[in-house]
Amino acid sequence: MKKQAFTNMVIAQSGGPSMVINQSLVGAVLAARAKKVGTKIGKILGARHGIAGILGRDYVDLRKVDGKKLLAIAATPSSALGSCRLKPTAEDCRKIFEEFKRLKVGYFFYIGGNDSADAARIVAEEAEKDGYPLVCYHIPKTIDNDLRSCDHTPGFASAVRFVASALKGDDLDNRALGGVKIDVIMGRDAGFLTAGAALARAHRDDGPHLLYFPERPFSEETFVADVQATMKKFGRCVIAVSEGIKDETGASIGAKFAGGEKDSHGNVQMSGTGALGDYLSRVVKEKAGVKRVRADTFGYLQRSFPGVASKVDQKEARTAGAAAVKAALAGQLTKGTIAIVRKPGKKYAVAFEPQPVANAAKYTRSLPDAYIAANGHDVTKAFLDYARPLVGELPACEIL
Amino acid sequence: MKKQAFTNMVIAQSGGPSMVINQSLVGAVLAARAKKVGTKIGKILGARHGIAGILGRDYVDLRKVDGKKLLAIAATPSSALGSCRLKPTAEDCRKIFEEFKRLKVGYFFYIGGNDSADAARIVAEEAEKDGYPLVCYHIPKTIDNDLRSCDHTPGFASAVRFVASALKGDDLDNRALGGVKIDVIMGRDAGFLTAGAALARAHRDDGPHLLYFPERPFSEETFVADVQATMKKFGRCVIAVSEGIKDETGASIGAKFAGGEKDSHGNVQMSGTGALGDYLSRVVKEKAGVKRVRADTFGYLQRSFPGVASKVDQKEARTAGAAAVKAALAGQLTKGTIAIVRKPGKKYAVAFEPQPVANAAKYTRSLPDAYIAANGHDVTKAFLDYARPLVGELPACEIL
Repeated sequence: MKKQAFTNMVIAQSGGPSMVINQSLVGAVLAARAKKVGTKIGKILGARHGIAGILGRDYVDLRKVDGKKLLAIAATPSSALGSCRLKPTAEDCRKIFEEFKRLKVGYFFYIGGNDSADAARIVAEEAEKDGYPLVCYHIPKTIDNDLRSCDHTPGFASAVRFVASALKGDDLDNRALGGVKIDVIMGRDAGFLTAGAALARAHRDDGPHLLYFPERPFSEETFVADVQATMKKFGRCVIAVSEGIKDETGASIGAKFAGGEKDSHGNVQMSGTGALGDYLSRVVKEKAGVKRVRADTFGYLQRSFPGVASKVDQKEARTAGAAAVKAALAGQLTKGTIAIVRKPGKKYAVAFEPQPVANAAKYTRSLPDAYIAANGHDVTKAFLDYARPLVGELPACEIL
Repeated sequence: MKKQAFTNMVIAQSGGPSMVINQSLVGAVLAARAKKVGTKIGKILGARHGIAGILGRDYVDLRKVDGKKLLAIAATPSSALGSCRLKPTAEDCRKIFEEFKRLKVGYFFYIGGNDSADAARIVAEEAEKDGYPLVCYHIPKTIDNDLRSCDHTPGFASAVRFVASALKGDDLDNRALGGVKIDVIMGRDAGFLTAGAALARAHRDDGPHLLYFPERPFSEETFVADVQATMKKFGRCVIAVSEGIKDETGASIGAKFAGGEKDSHGNVQMSGTGALGDYLSRVVKEKAGVKRVRADTFGYLQRSFPGVASKVDQKEARTAGAAAVKAALAGQLTKGTIAIVRKPGKKYAVAFEPQPVANAAKYTRSLPDAYIAANGHDVTKAFLDYARPLVGELPACEIL
């Protein structure tokens, strides 16, 4: 690769925030600020609210933020630069390159999920078409864990820590007062986070007793039978259900109740409403004949609750940010993403590999069949073995 | 007081669980197990599911549980003995005394809120009527903080830690993506827990920007105007609203959507549904003209999430349990509760005072006027000064 004409960089965050997306931001900024021989980064500009900040010329000078503050930002949930959900058009890209030219920007880093990777891909491809000299890297983030390029994505393990901790406490609450408890968990298309709820279990009869994923068609009839069987077995029932469950035709059940709001990537908004939980409650009350039924929708707390992040996740998110800057400076790819690859062997270890951005963009992956139990409403040991090293120890809970 | 004829004790938990109700259980058990001169406790029986466990002869022998396990139970959220929501009838009381006589029980401890205190009062008064020799103590617990006998109740500060932490993260999430975020918080009649959300604020423009309490009539019109004013000021708006808000006539707004389920104390079930949040979302979308509106109902996580309990709360809950046993053995009252009284002075300190059980029973207290801002949608400095020492430091969050 030829030497970059411009050495300034822009970094931004996009899509849903997570508990560790700021770790990636700070990892990238610290790597860009590191003094070393060879190619160097000039200005480090943080664009506020993703691409919107570039189009609106709204930046934070990230060379001027002192190291102590940067570390505090890293430990803070949500996207410190602000976020957006914007699919750039070719016209947006022209404006972005004009702005980049004005600012002498040769490096662009975009932290986010599959839609953000797709936005980065579009920007990179349009730059190539236009002959604008840009090295563009996507840095992975999503609590949904659905990037095809990653064994697991930064943000996922911390969200699982929240969900599994919540289920642990909620199961104890249900143990005390009985009945059926339904917990609705984020994940529009992938059941990874709902599967993570299974990590809450420690004792034989601990919940969640039933888990429902978008990867298996949801039938009211089977659901009612599952609940009745669990009530018979344990005298109570705790359920973890993905907000993304679909009926036999593949239509989202939650979307029916969610008002139909869509972002510019075409995703229907599903969180931020208790309607799916309330519907499932009604089903259990009316068809399973259970009197005490409660539903909670965990909502935005799953991605933003402070103080519960996974240590492994924090470290990996930081490293992924740094890896993108290093790969960009090394000139390995001009349109890249950082893939997180698990190394074979008993001891948990990962590698951070530069890969073409298209590997992370647009299309997502689902919870693999090997992680879903044959009955369709539980996880397998393979899933637990996959998830445990990422999530770490949960608070110990004892029963009488 | 004459020496108790029977020296065995029964202890039970009742009402909604909390993060520290097991601290009170363990505090009482350890005090009862302590070797010392004078009156001694014989058997220590934990009745499962409150009074229901006595009527159904379902006990745990708490002398046999080893110390290490007891300490693990203390640190575990929810009610380890199980709970119930049962107002004992005179006939129930007769059955309880028959059972107590069979087991040679002279001491009864009941951990719970105002309804549980009322249940303890009923049992104690019926025992007196029947001439059954019983020393009966209520041990305070409620996340609602609405016992008239306590400066604050065990369970409250830990629930505030959850709520304020959640609001901290949620405010950062709203900062990143904008719009209006509504968080519905527990508290059927008292706004203490909703007020606690204000502890989340650290920076000038931090949310929650608006707080709504059951103590002030909720008007859709004022609400819409408040939201519009906040959107104008900050370009975004985070709202903490009590599940117990009432309209001008005093009718609960949430109860309209909650299905009308009642317990034997006559309380309408309100948590475990997202309906109030969804209603408020619709109001903001339709009448305040805001496009991005999300609502989360924190639900049962507020009282059961492991790992976030307040250290002060844990210690005080333990001490309250021990104080009840000590007071019962000292023979100060036969129908008692442990009041938590804040000592005057700058340094935070409390005393645990035996008081008549009637002081805690049935009637609740509200968030005092002095804690509600003149505008009706915020707290005063007096509230923050009151709550901060109980809750402790929250996770630090930094903004760019």
